[in-house]
Amino acid sequence: MAMKTQEDLFLHLLQDIYYAEKQILKALPKMAKAVDGTELATLFREHEEETEGQVERLKKVFELGDKRARGVKCQAILGLIEESEDVMDDASDDEVLAIGLTAGAQAVEHYEIARYGTLVQWAKELGYDESVPLLQQNLDEEKNADKKLNELALKSAKQKKKAA
Amino acid sequence: MAMKTQEDLFLHLLQDIYYAEKQILKALPKMAKAVDGTELATLFREHEEETEGQVERLKKVFELGDKRARGVKCQAILGLIEESEDVMDDASDDEVLAIGLTAGAQAVEHYEIARYGTLVQWAKELGYDESVPLLQQNLDEEKNADKKLNELALKSAKQKKKAA
Repeated sequence: MAMKTQEDLFLHLLQDIYYAEKQILKALPKMAKAVDGTELATLFREHEEETEGQVERLKKVFELGDKRARGVKCQAILGLIEESEDVMDDASDDEVLAIGLTAGAQAVEHYEIARYGTLVQWAKELGYDESVPLLQQNLDEEKNADKKLNELALKSAKQKKKAA
Repeated sequence: MAMKTQEDLFLHLLQDIYYAEKQILKALPKMAKAVDGTELATLFREHEEETEGQVERLKKVFELGDKRARGVKCQAILGLIEESEDVMDDASDDEVLAIGLTAGAQAVEHYEIARYGTLVQWAKELGYDESVPLLQQNLDEEKNADKKLNELALKSAKQKKKAA
């Protein structure tokens, strides 16, 4: 698609993150299942629910711009998700699996934080006033998810140290 | 490559970010040239120099682990860089070019922030004490680059508003 104007860039990025969220919605249940029974699994399941809400908000942003909600293939997110799949295939024990999936999820969160940060900024500049709070809420949720993953990673490291 | 242990995950991620930095080193001069004469171009050129230092630090981390410095193809970074290339091909004017490239660069920075954040954490856990400050410095530089890009984006938006 054309990326001639800032409006084009906004729409492209909206389609990109819409595609990404849908891919994440497919990946999260698999990731949760792989670490079933752990705090990390709970976190993944909570984030799956949150992601459903985010997709609905994105649909609203499309609607507000009189555009059809559709995704555009985003190589970056596919690469990030593939990495988590490799970890699930390869990890020799539950601990390695958990730390690998946590790191992969944090990379995904950072991807989304960057994209929503830009979308919020552009929505303000373009006067898409009703879209701003919707995108801001998605941004806040991603930041919060990253924070929780970080806390869990630090907590697991501490427990490991204690056990050693 | 195998990702059975945390050591494997660390090495894999190190190779991933090494590959990413090398790709970024190739992309930055093109991006700077596309917005020649602007503050953004200066920022890209400064970051190119910084990136060269980061690559040297990564080589040191490989060395400390008695590993050969080599990259592993990272689909995520290729996707992010490709997006900036699309913007360079398509943007109808300098302003759109600048905002598109700024957003693309911020997505790259966030990718690196996530990866270096994980590498620092893992290096600590694995007792790679001499590698920690090297990776931490790369992390700090990426955070700083993202901050500068953000400030520039906000400044440009304000100037645009004033001019309107």
